[in-house]
Amino acid sequence: MKIICSKDILSKAVSTVLKAIPGRTTMPILECILINAEGNKIKLTANDTELGIETTIEGTITQPGRIAIEAKIFSEIIRRLPDNDIIITTDENSNMTIECEKAVFNIAGYDGYDFQALPSFEHKSYISLSQMTLKDIIRQTIFSISENENNRLMSGELLEIKNGILRLVSLDGHRISIRRVELKDNYDDAKVIIPGKTLSEIGKILTGGVDDEVLIYFGTNHVLFSFEDTLVVSRLIDGEYFKIDNMLNNDYSTKLSVNKRDFLNCIDRSTLLVKESDKKPLIFTVEDSNLQLSMKSSIGSLCEDLEVSKEGNDIKIGFNPRFLLDALRVIDDENVDIYMMNPKAPCFIKDKEESYIYLILPVNFASV
Amino acid sequence: MKIICSKDILSKAVSTVLKAIPGRTTMPILECILINAEGNKIKLTANDTELGIETTIEGTITQPGRIAIEAKIFSEIIRRLPDNDIIITTDENSNMTIECEKAVFNIAGYDGYDFQALPSFEHKSYISLSQMTLKDIIRQTIFSISENENNRLMSGELLEIKNGILRLVSLDGHRISIRRVELKDNYDDAKVIIPGKTLSEIGKILTGGVDDEVLIYFGTNHVLFSFEDTLVVSRLIDGEYFKIDNMLNNDYSTKLSVNKRDFLNCIDRSTLLVKESDKKPLIFTVEDSNLQLSMKSSIGSLCEDLEVSKEGNDIKIGFNPRFLLDALRVIDDENVDIYMMNPKAPCFIKDKEESYIYLILPVNFASV
Repeated sequence: MKIICSKDILSKAVSTVLKAIPGRTTMPILECILINAEGNKIKLTANDTELGIETTIEGTITQPGRIAIEAKIFSEIIRRLPDNDIIITTDENSNMTIECEKAVFNIAGYDGYDFQALPSFEHKSYISLSQMTLKDIIRQTIFSISENENNRLMSGELLEIKNGILRLVSLDGHRISIRRVELKDNYDDAKVIIPGKTLSEIGKILTGGVDDEVLIYFGTNHVLFSFEDTLVVSRLIDGEYFKIDNMLNNDYSTKLSVNKRDFLNCIDRSTLLVKESDKKPLIFTVEDSNLQLSMKSSIGSLCEDLEVSKEGNDIKIGFNPRFLLDALRVIDDENVDIYMMNPKAPCFIKDKEESYIYLILPVNFASV
Repeated sequence: MKIICSKDILSKAVSTVLKAIPGRTTMPILECILINAEGNKIKLTANDTELGIETTIEGTITQPGRIAIEAKIFSEIIRRLPDNDIIITTDENSNMTIECEKAVFNIAGYDGYDFQALPSFEHKSYISLSQMTLKDIIRQTIFSISENENNRLMSGELLEIKNGILRLVSLDGHRISIRRVELKDNYDDAKVIIPGKTLSEIGKILTGGVDDEVLIYFGTNHVLFSFEDTLVVSRLIDGEYFKIDNMLNNDYSTKLSVNKRDFLNCIDRSTLLVKESDKKPLIFTVEDSNLQLSMKSSIGSLCEDLEVSKEGNDIKIGFNPRFLLDALRVIDDENVDIYMMNPKAPCFIKDKEESYIYLILPVNFASV
């Protein structure tokens, strides 16, 4: 194989596929990037068997071929070469030579035919979405997947298409995050559970704006994201997702509207008093148009008043401040509405259109 | 005690004295900042008994007093308060109340009289220097102190005043770094060994420019740096520093002049091939006006040619690339001169005026 391409293009492509390189494995080939220059295009692929990424780059193929090369060292070499054309040559023993200006690197690779290709699958349906929207809704829900790998379902997110509405849902047992988007066209209904890692890596790769499109193809065991010159294939999580609609309701006895930034800053300050070993709740005391936030821990105490506009009853309720922060940090609105029923029922932070819904369970503070 | 000061000023002062807060101690009072509002000034002090920092801030003292408060939590609270006036009050039990707008924090402190004051000492001599110069020469030498705490002398830097010339010197057994500055006035000779930690923290605190002054006072066991509203006192390292002048000489058989950026980038690339467990030398092969840099390790090999202007003989010599990089990264010149004698004698990177001298020992490459 002999190919020539610019450092910029190669470097960008390598950093894209690098997202599918696992941290540590017992199979060296999984830590490789496949460079395939056998057709009339140069393709870079990484595939950890759960998540695979392939991207096509521009360049000159002087001699076709394929090689698998250890991803981390290859990416570091490319990154530190001068901004100029890079010539990559391989020999029959899978040794790679990388030349740029006067620098010549030699590193050993693996036979490209030992590299596991991306799975191909028949898609049952698909949707089209703006890249910006997909990036946004991932960011606005990904934080509440569960880190506990024992519950596979909670480690992924539900992506549901129903009557032209897309919902992306995550939950971890203490809270639920839902983002809802109206699709521009009519598509078949679909319902899949996508691993959190897949979504978070896609969130990082997507650079496009509102007008740049991403296509999502749904198969039985796989989902495929296609945008620009890149394909991302991921295995789906098996099983039936939680019936979240049963957990939602529109009843409330207290509704607060509050300036998001002030609210967030105040909650952020309270986290200074939280110790890993001694988690104290942040207590909301609502009286008329005053929301008092207070916390007392072994470190000290904080008390702060916020002006709110209130509908309904006064209430006293406790929360884990971290859960409130996570939700508030991804909400782009200037003001937020908080709906509460009683100190033991979940609270909802949501907008009027329910384009976002954050359900957060309160914490018992009776003993405080 | 009751004081009022602006968040900005307090926050800056806290982050300055925080540099003298030790990472982990068995004495909680050492992890505290002393706030002293007993005179007509507000002083903040941190003192880990090796290094002490005191800074004076503007503010209103409504009721004089002093208190010691846990530095990390205090600094975090101040940092997250709104940009406005902060009111700090303490009671007779050393409890502190911090108020800003509607936020009220309460945290427990310690009696300010339990806090160990900065050592006072008679200075034997002093010098004046621009803040920028001190910051520069610290940055340009600090990297070659030894991290091995067993050799106390190598963990510090020699600061020497002799005939109006200041020299700052560090060495670690493999290399020596020397910066030389002509002082503007005539000062008494002095020779002290300052702990590396002191210098590196001062390097971070100094923000002043060429025209801002720092005064350095030398005592028998201590050194004091005074600039703007801040005093830094440090214990000195006892003992006789290495006789570095015996290690320097001006003989050479090969002199190379090379573009610093190209040289640095090439050496930087070679470090990709260095494994912690298997340190290979970077080999210089000088033939006429060509400097070939090459390295071969279990990861792969690199070979690169650089154009140089040469005086003297051809030579083949090996180096630890990390030591070359450290020196080249802090040299501000566009071109550097490298002086070599033979493959076993130290190489010198220095400018004509010897305002900087970097001595680096070569590595044996016979077995490569």
